[in-house]
Amino acid sequence: MDNVLKEITPKSVDYSQWYTDVIRKADMVDYAPVKGFMVIKPYGYRIWEFIQAAMDQLFRETGHENAYFPLLIPENLLLKEAEHVEGFSAEVAWVTQGGSEPLAERLAVRPTSETIIGAMYSKWIQSYRDLPVLMNQWANVVRWEKATRPFLRTTEFLWQEGHTVHRTQAEAEFETRQQLEIYRRVIEGQLAIPVIAGRKSAGERFAGAVETFTLEALMGDGRALQIATSHFLGQNFSQAFEIQFLDEDGTLKYGWTTSWGSSTRMIGGLIMVHGDDKGLRIPPRVAPVQAVIVPIPRGAEAEQVMEYARGLRDALQAKGVRVRLDDRAEFTPGYKYNDWEMRGVPLRIEVGPKDLANQAMVLARRDTGEKESVRREGFEHVVLQRLDDIQNVLFSQALEHQKTHTVQVENYRQTEEYGYRGFFEGDWCGRETCADLLKAETGMTIRCLPLDRQPLGVGCVVCGEPSQERMLFARAY
Amino acid sequence: MDNVLKEITPKSVDYSQWYTDVIRKADMVDYAPVKGFMVIKPYGYRIWEFIQAAMDQLFRETGHENAYFPLLIPENLLLKEAEHVEGFSAEVAWVTQGGSEPLAERLAVRPTSETIIGAMYSKWIQSYRDLPVLMNQWANVVRWEKATRPFLRTTEFLWQEGHTVHRTQAEAEFETRQQLEIYRRVIEGQLAIPVIAGRKSAGERFAGAVETFTLEALMGDGRALQIATSHFLGQNFSQAFEIQFLDEDGTLKYGWTTSWGSSTRMIGGLIMVHGDDKGLRIPPRVAPVQAVIVPIPRGAEAEQVMEYARGLRDALQAKGVRVRLDDRAEFTPGYKYNDWEMRGVPLRIEVGPKDLANQAMVLARRDTGEKESVRREGFEHVVLQRLDDIQNVLFSQALEHQKTHTVQVENYRQTEEYGYRGFFEGDWCGRETCADLLKAETGMTIRCLPLDRQPLGVGCVVCGEPSQERMLFARAY
Repeated sequence: MDNVLKEITPKSVDYSQWYTDVIRKADMVDYAPVKGFMVIKPYGYRIWEFIQAAMDQLFRETGHENAYFPLLIPENLLLKEAEHVEGFSAEVAWVTQGGSEPLAERLAVRPTSETIIGAMYSKWIQSYRDLPVLMNQWANVVRWEKATRPFLRTTEFLWQEGHTVHRTQAEAEFETRQQLEIYRRVIEGQLAIPVIAGRKSAGERFAGAVETFTLEALMGDGRALQIATSHFLGQNFSQAFEIQFLDEDGTLKYGWTTSWGSSTRMIGGLIMVHGDDKGLRIPPRVAPVQAVIVPIPRGAEAEQVMEYARGLRDALQAKGVRVRLDDRAEFTPGYKYNDWEMRGVPLRIEVGPKDLANQAMVLARRDTGEKESVRREGFEHVVLQRLDDIQNVLFSQALEHQKTHTVQVENYRQTEEYGYRGFFEGDWCGRETCADLLKAETGMTIRCLPLDRQPLGVGCVVCGEPSQERMLFARAY
Repeated sequence: MDNVLKEITPKSVDYSQWYTDVIRKADMVDYAPVKGFMVIKPYGYRIWEFIQAAMDQLFRETGHENAYFPLLIPENLLLKEAEHVEGFSAEVAWVTQGGSEPLAERLAVRPTSETIIGAMYSKWIQSYRDLPVLMNQWANVVRWEKATRPFLRTTEFLWQEGHTVHRTQAEAEFETRQQLEIYRRVIEGQLAIPVIAGRKSAGERFAGAVETFTLEALMGDGRALQIATSHFLGQNFSQAFEIQFLDEDGTLKYGWTTSWGSSTRMIGGLIMVHGDDKGLRIPPRVAPVQAVIVPIPRGAEAEQVMEYARGLRDALQAKGVRVRLDDRAEFTPGYKYNDWEMRGVPLRIEVGPKDLANQAMVLARRDTGEKESVRREGFEHVVLQRLDDIQNVLFSQALEHQKTHTVQVENYRQTEEYGYRGFFEGDWCGRETCADLLKAETGMTIRCLPLDRQPLGVGCVVCGEPSQERMLFARAY
C-alpha cells in the first residue's frame, strides 16, 4: 500500500536496519499500537499458512490431532510445576479484571500451555488404553519481553504447541526425537534453512524439561537462531498434575510427557537466511507469489502483449503455480522489477513485443539473477523446473554459508578474531560455570550439544579440563 | 477416553441436559478450569477445521486475504467509537500487569477487532488505489459472559472476523451482502443448517454498525440461534479512526467499512439442529469420521473377517472417504454400534462371516436408521452416494422442522399456545417500545427483518399500529 519504493539499507552497513527495512517495505509486518506487538500483514501471514499446512500434515500422518485449550490459565495451575513457574513468571501478562468486576484469582495469558493441558490430561487419562495422547494446538501466546523485534521476539506470537502423554519413557523419548525430525523436514525442506540438531545444555533447557532438543540455524550476520524445540518432560508434569494411568499390570503409574513448539519466529529466520541487499528471497515452496509476469506493453502491440501475458498467467495457474500478473498501469516495468525483487518473488517473467513475436519470454531468477529466453511452448514445465532449482539453490547457498561460518576452536578466545560471528564448535567440560564465563566474556551461549558430534578430548575451550561434550556456541537472537 | 457409554437424557425430557450429555459423551468438548471457558477436543475441533477450510476458500475466491492483528488492545483505542465501547465495555477482560510491572494503560483482551484494525488501516490507506482493503483473521476472542454454554456462548471462542474498507458506500454494502451469502453457502451447504437471512432491527444491531445482517437458524427445541452476522459500518469507524483516502478527484474522503464474523458457535448449532436421542448426527461434509467399519469376527473365520474389513477400509480411503475401522478387541459389536451412533458417524458398515462369504456388507444410515445389504464390487460408489444422500436428508429434515415450526401471527399473544417455541412471523410498527414489550412479556426478541418478506399491512403484532416491517421473532440462545 506504500507505493513508493524506498532504499533498503545494505546488510553490510547495518544488518539490524536492513532487517527492519526489508520486513516493512516488503509488506510482511507492521508495528502495533502496543509496544512489542506486531501485525502480520497478508504477505507475511501467507508464508505462515504454508508452514502450517506442511507441518500439520506431518503431525497428522504421525497420529496427532488438533485441539484447542483456553487462553487464560488460573495462577494456581501455573504454580504447580516449580521450575516451570520460575522460568516463566517474569514474562506473564495477567488478567485481573473481567467485565466490571475484579477477579478473585488472577489469570495468566498463556505463555505456553503445559499447565492447563496437564490439568485436562489428568481428568481424561485413566487407563493404559487411553495412551498415547497425541495432541497439538495452533494458538497465540504472550510473553512479556523487554527487547522485541518483529517475528524474532515479540510479546505475542503465533505458534503450534504439541503435548503428548505416553505409557513408557522410551515412547516419550521417541516422540520427542520424531517431532524434532518433523521440524527439520519442514524447516530444511520448505523454508530451505539448514539446521544443526542437538540437545540443550542444562542451563538452556525449557523450564521443567528433563531434556530439550533444538534446531539451530545460522543467520546472515553470523548469529544463531533457535528455530524449533522439542522437550522430553519425563514425569515432572505428570507428577505435578497427577497424570496417572492404571497400567495393564494393575498398578497406577505416572505418564511420560513431551511438548514441542515452533512459531512465527521461523519467518524471521527465513528472511535473515535468504535475504540480500535487494530485499527478500523467498523459497518457492512457501512463496505467496512464486512467479510474477511483468508485461512490457510498448507501441502498437500493447494490447496483444497484455493478452499474451494473460495467457501465460492462465497456463501457469492451470499447473498450480502461484502466479501474479502485474498489470498496474501507473508503474514502469523497471519499477515493477525492483518491487517484486524486494518482495522476494522467486521467478520473474518478462514479456514484450519481441517475445510476443517470437512466442517466447524472458525468465529472471531471484536467487542467481540469471536471465534466459524460453519458448512459449511447454514453458510451464520450465517454470516448474526453475522453481525447483531455486528452492535447491537457496538451500545450498545457506548450507554453504553455514559451513564456511562454522569454526572449530580449542580455546574460546579464538572466537574474537571472527568478531564472535558464526557457529563455533569446541569441547566442553560440562560445567555451567564455564558456560557462564563464556557468556560473560563473549556474549556467546551454548546453542546445543550437536547430536552427531563427539568431544575431541582436547579439553574444555574455557577451562581446559577434560571434555565431556562437544558444543556448538554462538551469539544468538 | 471415557470408555463407559452412559445414557443420554432424551431431548423431550430435558433439552438442555441432552445437549450437555451429547457434547461431553461424544468427546466434542470439556469444561476448562476457569468458569465459562471450554476445551475443544479433537473430535469437535476437526469439525471446526472443515468449516474453516470451506469458508477460507470462499473468502479467498472473493479476493480476501488473511492477516493477524494483536490480541491486546489499548483502552484508548477501544474508547474511540462511542456506541462500540458502550456495547462491549461490560464484557471486556483487562490485562493490567505485564511481567512484574503494572501497566500504565490497561489492555483489553480483544472482544472483536474493529478498533485495532481501524487504527492500522488508518496508517495503511492513503489513496483510492489502496482500496478496497479486504482482510480476514482467524482468531480467539474473549467476552466476559455471565451465563455460558459450550460452543453456544463461552467466555473465549474461536472465530473469523473480516474487516474491509471501500471507496464507496455501494461497494461496502455489496461486500456486506456478499459475505452474508458466503456464510449461507457454508452453513446450508456444509453444516446442512437452513437459515433465514435478514436485517437486524436497530435494537439488535452490532454496536457501532449502521446495518447488521444476520442468519438465523431454528434449533431442535424451537429456539433461535444467530449463527453468523455481517455488518455495514458506514463511516462510523472510519471517522473514529481517521481512515481517509485521497480520491481520484483530489479530495480527501472517509472510507466505507464492513465487518463480518462467524464462530465456533456454529458447531453448537449443528449439534442442536441434527442431534437426536441417540446422540449426534454429523453431516458427512464436516464429519471427522464419515464411515465406520465394525467387524463381527465370529468363530473360525474371525481373522478372514478382519482382513476383509481392512480391505474395505483401504478401498474407501483410496476414494478419499474419511473411514475408521473399529478393531477394538475389548468391545462387542453392539457396544460399538451405540458408540458411533452417539458420535454421529453418518454411515456404519457391518461385516461378519456371512458378508464375507457373500462378498457383501451391511450399510446402516445414521440419518434414517435404514439398513441395506451391498455387494463388495463397486461398494465405494454406493458409500459415496449414501453420504451425499445423508447430507441432503439432514438438510431436508432440518428445513422441514423449520417450516413446520414457523407460524404467522397477527397478535403476539398467539405465541403462547406454542409455548413461545418456534419462529414467529408478524408485522411490526418499527418502534423499539413494541420490541421491548414483546421481550418483557414473552422472552422473545426480534431475530431479523427477513430479506424476502414484506409487511402484510395487518398492523403491528404488539400495538396494532400500521406496519413498517415484517419481522421474525423467537426466543433465542
